[in-house]
Amino acid sequence: MILTFVGTAGSGKTTITHTFGKYLEKEGYTVGYVNLDTGVKKLPYKPNIDVRETVTVEEIMKEGYGPNGAIVESYDRLMPHIERYITKILELERGKDYVLIDTPGQIETFLFHEFGVRLMENLPAPLVVYLFSPEVLRKPHDYCFVRFFALMIDLRLGSTTVPALNKVDLVDNLERHKQYLEDMEYLTSRLKLDSSTQGLLAYKLCTFLPEVSPPVRILYLSAKTGEGFDDLETIAYEHYCTCGDLT
Amino acid sequence: MILTFVGTAGSGKTTITHTFGKYLEKEGYTVGYVNLDTGVKKLPYKPNIDVRETVTVEEIMKEGYGPNGAIVESYDRLMPHIERYITKILELERGKDYVLIDTPGQIETFLFHEFGVRLMENLPAPLVVYLFSPEVLRKPHDYCFVRFFALMIDLRLGSTTVPALNKVDLVDNLERHKQYLEDMEYLTSRLKLDSSTQGLLAYKLCTFLPEVSPPVRILYLSAKTGEGFDDLETIAYEHYCTCGDLT
Repeated sequence: MILTFVGTAGSGKTTITHTFGKYLEKEGYTVGYVNLDTGVKKLPYKPNIDVRETVTVEEIMKEGYGPNGAIVESYDRLMPHIERYITKILELERGKDYVLIDTPGQIETFLFHEFGVRLMENLPAPLVVYLFSPEVLRKPHDYCFVRFFALMIDLRLGSTTVPALNKVDLVDNLERHKQYLEDMEYLTSRLKLDSSTQGLLAYKLCTFLPEVSPPVRILYLSAKTGEGFDDLETIAYEHYCTCGDLT
Repeated sequence: MILTFVGTAGSGKTTITHTFGKYLEKEGYTVGYVNLDTGVKKLPYKPNIDVRETVTVEEIMKEGYGPNGAIVESYDRLMPHIERYITKILELERGKDYVLIDTPGQIETFLFHEFGVRLMENLPAPLVVYLFSPEVLRKPHDYCFVRFFALMIDLRLGSTTVPALNKVDLVDNLERHKQYLEDMEYLTSRLKLDSSTQGLLAYKLCTFLPEVSPPVRILYLSAKTGEGFDDLETIAYEHYCTCGDLT
């Protein structure tokens, strides 16, 4: 089974790859680790496959590139090697119960660069876990934003995407977050109170969400305390073993 | 009038800020330039306001951060100065016909970090131009992706967002791109042929697009040849002077 952690810089992809991997190993599974981040300096886990063997952002910056240009350039330079990386991941998957993929630091590198799109197209039904942090959820329309952003990832990568609120150990009102993320009737009733054009757009989008979104359960995770890891394990199992029904 | 260029690294934000600014100056307007990218090394224009006066990604990397961590950290360090930057931009706007804002290299820094969201909330009706490159448009569902991504920016930043295909000088089949981007009936008819779950999701989303999207014209720009600059000028004028009707 291939699990891919996608999210913005700081959303906890690397930490959860590490701690969820340890959790699976404790459960008795064999786990392979893949690092796709050319910019990371240190990893808490030992990757079986690591794109930094081909190129790093740091060495490109030494050629005079700025950090943004160097990030893009590093994935341009990975492109001639993509078939090799796909083969390596497929080989790893055959030998392990789980393969955990830690994606580039900046989400756009994976969503917009051909490297991410091509790679995901060539893996067998990888499940994507879209990690977002509590700090992006400030207003009702932000909940609508993350729900649709998960659909955007699904649309772009063609992979079933599970939205996951990470860092729940930092949250004291988890039930409120859950209500906004899961109860679309409640969320739209709150959005209705916002008469701005932004509120109206959010209202329209969220009214439509139940029609367009594949049935999906939302995860609440903590890479720190291991909260929700059992749910993540269950959802991965269901994705691979019960034909993708993630309700 | 405030125009904000948003897009992924390499989509042409900095180049178009420069060349569209020159175009406006030639037309007789006064133009103010704002750089919000802490990671850029050299700018082709002289910014009136520049966040690099407060912090740069490069200096943070010297403290031992990797590039991704340093980008996030730079905007964390800008947060205590945000009110000052908002005041400066508002002052600049009072003295100029146009203010052009060049946003962070990585789009997620602007969409997910509080810096981008707070800044945009506090500017008077900034028009966002969402730049995307022809290379992200490979398959029918990619057109659906960029149309919805523009809505995501609108939803997150609360600012009217105009989708703009940039680098049209590199495109030889512009009419085909236009048809896919604008003719939703044509696009959905193509999407219907794709029976994958990705195709189905794209079909559902695009069927819904005309209902949810505010009326908007799509721009076709070339920062290199100046193609479409007259349309961009018109759309900015309409946004500010005719109550936001951008049809």
